[in-house]
Amino acid sequence: MQRRKFLKTAGIAAAATAVAAPAIAQSMPELKWRCTTSWPKSLDTLFGGPEYAAKRIAEMTDNKFQIRVFAAGEIVPALQVADAVQNGTVELGHTASYYYFGKDPTFAFDCSISFGLNERQQNAWYEFGGGKPMMREFFKTFGIHNIPCGNTGAQMGGWFRKEIKTIEDVKGLKMRIGGFSGQVLARVGGVPQNIAGGDIYPALEKGTIDAAEWVGPYDDEKLGFNKVAPFYYYPGWWEGGPQVSMYVGLKAWDSLTPAYKAILEAACAEAHKWMVAKYDAENPAALRRLIAGGTKLRPFSRATMEGFYKASTEVFAENSAKYPTFKKIYDQWLNFRDEENLWFRVAESSFDNFMSHISSQKKT
Amino acid sequence: MQRRKFLKTAGIAAAATAVAAPAIAQSMPELKWRCTTSWPKSLDTLFGGPEYAAKRIAEMTDNKFQIRVFAAGEIVPALQVADAVQNGTVELGHTASYYYFGKDPTFAFDCSISFGLNERQQNAWYEFGGGKPMMREFFKTFGIHNIPCGNTGAQMGGWFRKEIKTIEDVKGLKMRIGGFSGQVLARVGGVPQNIAGGDIYPALEKGTIDAAEWVGPYDDEKLGFNKVAPFYYYPGWWEGGPQVSMYVGLKAWDSLTPAYKAILEAACAEAHKWMVAKYDAENPAALRRLIAGGTKLRPFSRATMEGFYKASTEVFAENSAKYPTFKKIYDQWLNFRDEENLWFRVAESSFDNFMSHISSQKKT
Repeated sequence: MQRRKFLKTAGIAAAATAVAAPAIAQSMPELKWRCTTSWPKSLDTLFGGPEYAAKRIAEMTDNKFQIRVFAAGEIVPALQVADAVQNGTVELGHTASYYYFGKDPTFAFDCSISFGLNERQQNAWYEFGGGKPMMREFFKTFGIHNIPCGNTGAQMGGWFRKEIKTIEDVKGLKMRIGGFSGQVLARVGGVPQNIAGGDIYPALEKGTIDAAEWVGPYDDEKLGFNKVAPFYYYPGWWEGGPQVSMYVGLKAWDSLTPAYKAILEAACAEAHKWMVAKYDAENPAALRRLIAGGTKLRPFSRATMEGFYKASTEVFAENSAKYPTFKKIYDQWLNFRDEENLWFRVAESSFDNFMSHISSQKKT
Repeated sequence: MQRRKFLKTAGIAAAATAVAAPAIAQSMPELKWRCTTSWPKSLDTLFGGPEYAAKRIAEMTDNKFQIRVFAAGEIVPALQVADAVQNGTVELGHTASYYYFGKDPTFAFDCSISFGLNERQQNAWYEFGGGKPMMREFFKTFGIHNIPCGNTGAQMGGWFRKEIKTIEDVKGLKMRIGGFSGQVLARVGGVPQNIAGGDIYPALEKGTIDAAEWVGPYDDEKLGFNKVAPFYYYPGWWEGGPQVSMYVGLKAWDSLTPAYKAILEAACAEAHKWMVAKYDAENPAALRRLIAGGTKLRPFSRATMEGFYKASTEVFAENSAKYPTFKKIYDQWLNFRDEENLWFRVAESSFDNFMSHISSQKKT
């Protein structure tokens, strides 16, 4: 009788637990997802971003939501991340959206277009300037939920074997340039090449290309471009603040609990901040090392910049005529960009320029 | 017999559940915390930051970890947040660390010192430049675990009733200025006042003070300074990228599970990015409205800026002599700042300056 009573009580407890259990199971299910990327593992900034996000997601869920991050080519080629996520080959992909401009140039607003937004302006446009709803609607047509997950800051203008004194010097130049902005290079007579990060060095070394840009001092030094091209130009007018993104397959996204959706987004925001901070912290010493090793730092002249700018406005006008979604976003985006720049030159740039003046007087 | 068998089976299930339950209970306990802030509710950027973090923490934990955010003065005065967290009056506080420079000027590195880091450089110093371990060690002595949770970007130089043509015009000027940099103002003959955001307008209106600075166009317009002072100067050389922080009482922090620690930190990082983006998105239109309403925008002259800079180096030397921890951090920080500025003027500022040139040609 004692035993029967115990069992009966236990039975009630079990029933009570059984009612509570589904809620817990639903909010923290065990998941093992795969994230393919466009980056070689050696780039601990770009590849480090999704790795950082995955680590934080595991911590926030007591290891219940686990994500394995793969380098470019391990399971999917570097420039096919969008397809792999769209097809459901993987649940997640970390990539630069402008790689997919061939599908539709609208992709590029999720990353960077020539003479575009700097890192802070891209975040502002995305979160408060109308960017997020427009881009989410666009990505939905490709079966992707896109989440900002990193930025490189303003990039360098790349590595050249010969000096670029005027825009005429670009004519006939075979150059690796990221994504959509190759159309601008082509308009002034250059020959753009869309090559994945890990494949640029051999192409430059063999002379298949004459020039190449990737990101900035820290990454470019790792990829070794300084060994084969002496002139290092700035700024990268096509990448003032390129954003990299976490792609989530729409079905995978819809399968997540509200808590896991929030955890994934928060981890991407944290990884974003982490990546920008890492680039900003590592680039100064890398640039010093490059210059000490013989790299010749050169600014694009004002006239060269203006030539590229003029070409870019023509390219955008052409794409606006061909792609209605591109035009709709471009018109809104362009006004936002100009308003931001008028404000940034007041407090932000006047402060930065004074500080550059101070620090350059102290140091060389 | 059937019934006994059912109960026995249920009993086994209950035992299995009882083993699993504590792990779930431990990782997601029910918590209700309070967060006091230094901000009036009307400032939906600064006050909005901890509110945003609280909302995301609730979402990430299925409402198990709930944080109630209070405006300045609701439970703790605006400038006593550090004390309230240290004493355990509240578990959390959201504030600007330079308000507590009277306890030790080292607090200011967690926010901003004159001619300091911009927003990105502050993040870089904190995460990868040695800032975090040094500042965590310092805050521990005050019983606080500090987490970056927002930034305003470069601020404006404030509102003045008369023009500031040379540094001589600052002499005798009673000015509300945030935190530690009042010492720099005092050194050139000004009379600094440390007044909470919500109390500045009445002081300026009554003539208790002659000038005041808060943040930038969006906040300053809300606080109404333009109604009582016509000249709006830039840049705020004492706040190139002031960080605001989430303070966690050390006991409260230590009581959190690893998952909740990660969730709190990730939510603060997300709120940080949110706040900077909101300021950057809202400021341009606010500045246009202010100028349309008669505000006169003025830059501090180069000579005036250099005068303030000279005064600031003297103030830092004095504080270094008095406070060993300040000196240790200042020496490391100063080298980091100068290296950052030499890099930022290459890609980042040359891009921003070209874009300002383009946008100002298009618009007025």
